[in-house]
Amino acid sequence: MAESLIAQHDAILAANALDIQAGREKGLSTTLLDRLLLTEQRVQGMAEGLRQIAGLPDPVGQVLEGSRRPNGLDIQRVRVPLGVIGIIYESRPNVTADAAGLCVKSGNAVILRGGSEAIHSNTVIARILAHAGECGGLPQHSIQFIETTDRTAALALMRAEGYIDLLIPRGGEGLKKMVMENATVPVLKALGGNCHTYVDSSADLTMAADIAFNAKVSRPSVCNAMETLLVHQDVAEALLPSLCTRYQEAGVELRGCEATRYLVPFVVPAEESDWATEFLAPILAIRVVPSLDFALDHIAKYGTKHSEAIVTKDYDSAQRFVQEVDCACAYVNASTRFTDGFEFGLGAEVGISTQKLHARGPVGIVELTTYKTIVRGNGQIRV
Amino acid sequence: MAESLIAQHDAILAANALDIQAGREKGLSTTLLDRLLLTEQRVQGMAEGLRQIAGLPDPVGQVLEGSRRPNGLDIQRVRVPLGVIGIIYESRPNVTADAAGLCVKSGNAVILRGGSEAIHSNTVIARILAHAGECGGLPQHSIQFIETTDRTAALALMRAEGYIDLLIPRGGEGLKKMVMENATVPVLKALGGNCHTYVDSSADLTMAADIAFNAKVSRPSVCNAMETLLVHQDVAEALLPSLCTRYQEAGVELRGCEATRYLVPFVVPAEESDWATEFLAPILAIRVVPSLDFALDHIAKYGTKHSEAIVTKDYDSAQRFVQEVDCACAYVNASTRFTDGFEFGLGAEVGISTQKLHARGPVGIVELTTYKTIVRGNGQIRV
Repeated sequence: MAESLIAQHDAILAANALDIQAGREKGLSTTLLDRLLLTEQRVQGMAEGLRQIAGLPDPVGQVLEGSRRPNGLDIQRVRVPLGVIGIIYESRPNVTADAAGLCVKSGNAVILRGGSEAIHSNTVIARILAHAGECGGLPQHSIQFIETTDRTAALALMRAEGYIDLLIPRGGEGLKKMVMENATVPVLKALGGNCHTYVDSSADLTMAADIAFNAKVSRPSVCNAMETLLVHQDVAEALLPSLCTRYQEAGVELRGCEATRYLVPFVVPAEESDWATEFLAPILAIRVVPSLDFALDHIAKYGTKHSEAIVTKDYDSAQRFVQEVDCACAYVNASTRFTDGFEFGLGAEVGISTQKLHARGPVGIVELTTYKTIVRGNGQIRV
Repeated sequence: MAESLIAQHDAILAANALDIQAGREKGLSTTLLDRLLLTEQRVQGMAEGLRQIAGLPDPVGQVLEGSRRPNGLDIQRVRVPLGVIGIIYESRPNVTADAAGLCVKSGNAVILRGGSEAIHSNTVIARILAHAGECGGLPQHSIQFIETTDRTAALALMRAEGYIDLLIPRGGEGLKKMVMENATVPVLKALGGNCHTYVDSSADLTMAADIAFNAKVSRPSVCNAMETLLVHQDVAEALLPSLCTRYQEAGVELRGCEATRYLVPFVVPAEESDWATEFLAPILAIRVVPSLDFALDHIAKYGTKHSEAIVTKDYDSAQRFVQEVDCACAYVNASTRFTDGFEFGLGAEVGISTQKLHARGPVGIVELTTYKTIVRGNGQIRV
């Protein structure tokens, strides 16, 4: 599949040119056009991504546990594919290769539904992948792409009960909510991350400033970026003035509580709604808190159970935080930006699950499987 | 909790007498009255069930995997409770103790909603358990019981989004369907088992007859009982006449395909709908099939992905069957009746999941947990 993409990059780039032209005519923003654009280098990046997925250990067939019962039954729990995975995604055509690779590597069939902006690129990429897969021995129709932008096709996919084992939306919050509201098949909840960093009274303040700066500024548009900074009142004066200046210089809009504004006058007042907002933008809410308990309560009230961090030198505070905070990924002395399949060493991912059932956090090939119990006997009956 | 139940069995039996009296007045069947009835021995059984649950290894805190990344981050995936589990159940008051024990052992809080027939028994049992739990150090309100039979309370539980992490219906198909249709919180799908036993052409026919008889007759009313027997045509004549006589003597109504009826004239004709029916009663559908492939196709078409068995002496048939049949529990040369938490050595269970996501097959304390990723660093930021 990787080789076919590279070998046929001319066809991919030609199809992509049609999407870019249509996008310009539709007046897409420069950012969206850039996300849509494919180059020879980006096609090679897609191929490289597939090679990395191919190199991951195969999860299917792994024996999770097993035992022999007193009656002689041999019982094994074995990892098996989920079945048919549906993926509804937006904009970036590289998702086509990425998602197809992850689903096929985990033994699943996949039905892809891309955004209308990338329909030409996605169609060509999917055809190349499906053909290459079949040539490589995959069952026919293992990789399917819906070659129409008709909205009824997307709705049919969302309601194909008994045919879709898991539907994964990849894209903005609007897409995810639309899928969750309309789908009757099982959907992977990968809602946004209203992530926090709490700077404890015992924190190394240089470390705290670097982590808090990185968590907000390195890539504000992604779900693992920090949205609210919580600072213990004992260190607020030592930390906030210089850190806020650093944010300001980086173009971050700051919205703070009264105590924050007392220390840093150029911070604008935060509204109640700011604590609950995933900005996905260079905007940061800041709140001075009296204690770790207060910080944990704030996170429990406003967080989305995605990624939460504490910066501390105190052993008990670190232990309490990671045990009591209810989220997919809990950090001590590190940036929440590490919540990512690659960074965790799991390989590529189809998203970050914010649900508690089945998969929590990065969803890679292992999370695209289920298990089956195989029982081997020699005539056992139940008395 | 076990000791408190035994110490206060007088109060439990007094409350139960009220339920039994009300049941008699409502005209409940003898079977239902027997399921409702508590005796000193049954209370001791409930206590013994709790002691067994207490003796299971604690799943919470188990490190599922862990590694140190090249950047020095220590990453661990740790098992944690789901949070708050709701359980809606019918009739048998022992479920109150059983479900409370499983939820508490796995670190969860539980909100129980029992059937109206057992309201007096359940209320007393739940109060005893909640008080004993608190005296034993559980947080207040860890065990809650809805002490009203008002239907709006059940609906409120089904729609308590953000408060219930998993809702488990325990009872008949009617209850399960009602919960799945009305709930907006995550529900564990534990639908019925339309289970099959396929007797291969190579089967040891004595073993096949014993397994097929046990799978149907040992307890026809449960979800792991066989509902359709599939027999390879090469062994139908040698197997079916004597086996069908055995079923007939045990009071099983037999509904067969034409080939079955040619061999065993007293079998009545099976309708298409019989293949799709979970009888949960002493009724069995029988079909003679030309091949393993045909049997697998039949199971794929009519099965409910619960428990499926093959009886065979052929290695390749056994391997193909367990790999290709899509179900929670696949058996070779054993009765499907073993699909059960105790029989699998997992301890008590809250049900048999027929969904593929999160948990598949028996749902015990491990399946009542999720995981959290804990990341410990010393100042790492993402570049």
